[in-house]
Amino acid sequence: MTSPRKEKLGAVLLGENACSFLVWAPRANRVDVCIGDPPEREIPMQSVGCGYFHTVAQDVSAGALYRYRLNNKKERPDPASRYQPRGVHGPSQVADNRFHWNDSQWTGLPLEKYVLYELHVGTFTPQGTFDAIVPRLPTLKDLGVTAIELMPVAQFPGERNWGYDGVYPYAVQASYGGPLGLKTLVDACHQLEIAVVLDVVYNHFGPEGNYSADFAPYFTDIYKTPWGQAVNFDDAHSDEVRRYFIENALEWITDFHIDSLRLDAVHAIIDTSAQTFLEELAAAVHSRAKSLGREVHLIPESNRNDARMISAPDAGGWGFDAVWNDDFHHSLHVLLTGEQDGYYQDFCGIEDLAGSYREGFLYAGRYSKFRQKRYGGSSKHIPAKRFVVYAQNHDQIGNRRLGDRLSQSLSFPQLKLAAGTVLFSPYIPLLFMGEEYSERAPFEYFVSHGDPSLIEAVRRGRKDEFAKFGWTGDIPDPQSAATFLDSKLNWDVQAEGHHRILWHFYQELLRIRRALPPLAELDKNAMEVTSFANEKVLLVRRWKAASQVLIVYHFGQESTELLLPIPAGRWHVTLDSAQQQWIDQGHSQACETPAVIESRGEAPLTLNPWAFLVFVKSHEINE
Amino acid sequence: MTSPRKEKLGAVLLGENACSFLVWAPRANRVDVCIGDPPEREIPMQSVGCGYFHTVAQDVSAGALYRYRLNNKKERPDPASRYQPRGVHGPSQVADNRFHWNDSQWTGLPLEKYVLYELHVGTFTPQGTFDAIVPRLPTLKDLGVTAIELMPVAQFPGERNWGYDGVYPYAVQASYGGPLGLKTLVDACHQLEIAVVLDVVYNHFGPEGNYSADFAPYFTDIYKTPWGQAVNFDDAHSDEVRRYFIENALEWITDFHIDSLRLDAVHAIIDTSAQTFLEELAAAVHSRAKSLGREVHLIPESNRNDARMISAPDAGGWGFDAVWNDDFHHSLHVLLTGEQDGYYQDFCGIEDLAGSYREGFLYAGRYSKFRQKRYGGSSKHIPAKRFVVYAQNHDQIGNRRLGDRLSQSLSFPQLKLAAGTVLFSPYIPLLFMGEEYSERAPFEYFVSHGDPSLIEAVRRGRKDEFAKFGWTGDIPDPQSAATFLDSKLNWDVQAEGHHRILWHFYQELLRIRRALPPLAELDKNAMEVTSFANEKVLLVRRWKAASQVLIVYHFGQESTELLLPIPAGRWHVTLDSAQQQWIDQGHSQACETPAVIESRGEAPLTLNPWAFLVFVKSHEINE
Repeated sequence: MTSPRKEKLGAVLLGENACSFLVWAPRANRVDVCIGDPPEREIPMQSVGCGYFHTVAQDVSAGALYRYRLNNKKERPDPASRYQPRGVHGPSQVADNRFHWNDSQWTGLPLEKYVLYELHVGTFTPQGTFDAIVPRLPTLKDLGVTAIELMPVAQFPGERNWGYDGVYPYAVQASYGGPLGLKTLVDACHQLEIAVVLDVVYNHFGPEGNYSADFAPYFTDIYKTPWGQAVNFDDAHSDEVRRYFIENALEWITDFHIDSLRLDAVHAIIDTSAQTFLEELAAAVHSRAKSLGREVHLIPESNRNDARMISAPDAGGWGFDAVWNDDFHHSLHVLLTGEQDGYYQDFCGIEDLAGSYREGFLYAGRYSKFRQKRYGGSSKHIPAKRFVVYAQNHDQIGNRRLGDRLSQSLSFPQLKLAAGTVLFSPYIPLLFMGEEYSERAPFEYFVSHGDPSLIEAVRRGRKDEFAKFGWTGDIPDPQSAATFLDSKLNWDVQAEGHHRILWHFYQELLRIRRALPPLAELDKNAMEVTSFANEKVLLVRRWKAASQVLIVYHFGQESTELLLPIPAGRWHVTLDSAQQQWIDQGHSQACETPAVIESRGEAPLTLNPWAFLVFVKSHEINE
Repeated sequence: MTSPRKEKLGAVLLGENACSFLVWAPRANRVDVCIGDPPEREIPMQSVGCGYFHTVAQDVSAGALYRYRLNNKKERPDPASRYQPRGVHGPSQVADNRFHWNDSQWTGLPLEKYVLYELHVGTFTPQGTFDAIVPRLPTLKDLGVTAIELMPVAQFPGERNWGYDGVYPYAVQASYGGPLGLKTLVDACHQLEIAVVLDVVYNHFGPEGNYSADFAPYFTDIYKTPWGQAVNFDDAHSDEVRRYFIENALEWITDFHIDSLRLDAVHAIIDTSAQTFLEELAAAVHSRAKSLGREVHLIPESNRNDARMISAPDAGGWGFDAVWNDDFHHSLHVLLTGEQDGYYQDFCGIEDLAGSYREGFLYAGRYSKFRQKRYGGSSKHIPAKRFVVYAQNHDQIGNRRLGDRLSQSLSFPQLKLAAGTVLFSPYIPLLFMGEEYSERAPFEYFVSHGDPSLIEAVRRGRKDEFAKFGWTGDIPDPQSAATFLDSKLNWDVQAEGHHRILWHFYQELLRIRRALPPLAELDKNAMEVTSFANEKVLLVRRWKAASQVLIVYHFGQESTELLLPIPAGRWHVTLDSAQQQWIDQGHSQACETPAVIESRGEAPLTLNPWAFLVFVKSHEINE
């Protein structure tokens, strides 16, 4: 038998004054719930099969603190704790699940409407809370964002963390505002028709405050991951480990009205079962979404380039909705920065960007010098909406030695070109908070662990990691509060100079993306991508029915005049990234582009450095 | 770049007197071929990229002994050695690949024609050689066998081994007769239209005489397998490890005319790539088979019950042709023996056999007490020819404490019932050598390692393994020659008493299987399986067009009279396993079955203990 109990895991209030406790603890012979901190009352739990213990306790109401006592010895917080008001080592708290929702009209957004905005709750605002995000939503809405993506919010050690060190997947970080804060934010988003994506971490537990192994075999020795012991998804007892995470995913969707989940680094979930945990998760979430009448998407991050992951189950796939596409990022990044360290050594030139722009995965069986093996499978047949692309994200910034954004190394025209490449691709775009106005603050790696030896290990670990890239020298101290504070956004600069111009530029690109049918429709098959390696030009033609859009990206440093194979007809310039209104003060455009070009199959074009042009075929406008 | 060399791995003669040597040795800076033992001549090799070293040596002919010298230090046999005349630690030998084949008419058999006969070369005959098998082929042919399946023949330590301790995948065990012996056997089989299946081991190397890690990263630390370090199929440099095994598979097919490969325990090949080694292997072998115009099948053993493995690549599958089905075996075994130890605890009763008979995998997401988790996926949609079934095989006999066959614990009627259940199923049947005449010799576990500590470890390991089953007490000493000799077949008994009867019974079942279209056609969808748990009866109806066959299996100890739901009509008994001619002397049939029964939808039948009946619907015969 598997998971015999219908009750939810953890502490769940039944009315005002009674509480159901269910915990999976096959490593214990006896479990008691100890109410209060220090314990004032102990309630023995019943062993109910498959290693589960259960009880319904009377006179327990919202706010009660508790721990489980295992075998009359260790007292431990609840692995399925909904709230850890005193941190990861403290007692768990019975949470009040009641909330007055105002989003009954909201059923989510189709995937192809997503314009993602990734944000870190702690550094997005000075306050670092869910509540503080709410007043900023209208500005994001105005920009054209349709979905915010929250970096993980599961309870982590201390108050400063990216979130990937969470140890209580069910508990919302107390310092962010806990479960009530998160619900308030989600409700506010839905009022504005903004979807909320939550980043969840099912591939490992954080290194501090994780007591789950005292309860049950959450880990397996068969596999190793970059973060140590692997979570047990296919060894003995894995059914209940799977249940623990699947029930967690369903809770976010159901009780928190979260619209979609981003699944962190699923390549670190090693599972050789015929039905993998990930397939089971996808099926469970999609089935729940269907019964709720909502659009819910599951978006893993994976370094496998495995099209099976984003294929439908009836095609032998795992049934995920989209995947982060690093190939697109890396191709674009090396074109813009010229970097060739670490994994960037595998990417070079316009051809690589063209490949990824065309198909999704560039590495589809190609040999990688960095990985020293071939990897990936073809994604030619996979619809465009199944890929998330970005010029920056938390990892690609934060895992640099100094956490520097593109804004610190690129010119203003380059930043605009990055935006255009992402936003006019047929894929789901993702912006990283602050990118839209050229935020200069770094996004550094920060933690606030309690264990001195762990703190030292993190410091060393980061340095060693960078050394692999050939990056030596000092790094910002991950444990220092200053590192965290330095990473906070400076929204006030939005009103100023080039920050303001860039913000409006992003807004305009997103407007055009929605307005022009060939861009609004995410269709790789209605697209032709041509690359000119020497000229550093990428020519992208997209169409829908008779509507046609042509985008000319120029990744060259110098102005250049070219004869380009532009389909015959009249083409109107809809956007010129080097036009006066998009130029920072003190700079000026090197050359003018005519408002209309006539092509007989070829046409001469003068391209500004790091600029791009968007043309619409004439009959679109006048005929 | 990947595998830049077109030459074959290892030593390959170019004409009479020159030899190409290619070795993958990225762990060496310098490699020399040392000809002779002890070395008489040293030839420096050229580094040709990706860690390969190559040379063409003059004045080297067939029979020359050689080793590679790495970095001017270690001298090592060739990981791709074709012959190890002096054992696993000795020098490699340049093999003569020339052979006069007489099988040019042979193109293989379609999978559905396979009747497999698994044999171990060392114990099949007193001589224990390929040559000694040849004179016995006509008897197997006579029996109805269409394919022999050789347990692994890759060079292993010493002269006694099941074959799973092989360390030179390309070298044919010298004591069996080496490459020439194998070719002679294959050629003889093909003259008789018998296919040859070779068991190959790509999931691990044996524990003694494996020097491959001195050359290259054949292993990875990321995963553990039951046999220690995992072979590197997805880590850095895995492309060349894959090449090593894929080229090996192609060589068996191409140079040895092997018809099909059985892949040992592929669940121990851990590989999370988008394109797994196993998919790549299947594609390469099928492509080669196509270009050779031959029917080649790949038949993995796997404990995953993963239908993806035997699905076509365009359905998201891995493209294997069939898989060993332990669920069928275990269901049948517990019905016959009543055993419930170890993994047998997961199987019980007629219902389980019915489930596996109907679909293939019984465990398709069901919870296993033995594994303490759910496992498997549905195989309902998978054609019957994709499953290999058996009442016995080398593992199911040899991994018992005393290596005892069913013949040692079951009654004669039970042995016949086992045969009928396997041979009248819609799956590919496999017999284990000697099963067909109730061989009494055990098939024990034997080795002939050279390293005393390894020998001790094997002895201890076997005992510990059995202890998990609750089987304690002495075991035959794996290292003893007596254990090997005890396991040899005693073919002379075939002529005697019940041995002779059983042999003819198998022969008759195989004749009926070919003769009756509903049995010859392997179609799960033209089959109805009904189980009667209390009565211990399994009713199987199979049809093709208007032809109908009904099989009544009775797994009860006592004669019983039953009213069975038999479709209306006249049914003729084609076979009664309890009929006088199939009864051992001194025994007699408990009850007679009429030669014809008339059913109006139900009919009474009297069933002998452990017996089965085969009926053919009347118009089949006379109308």
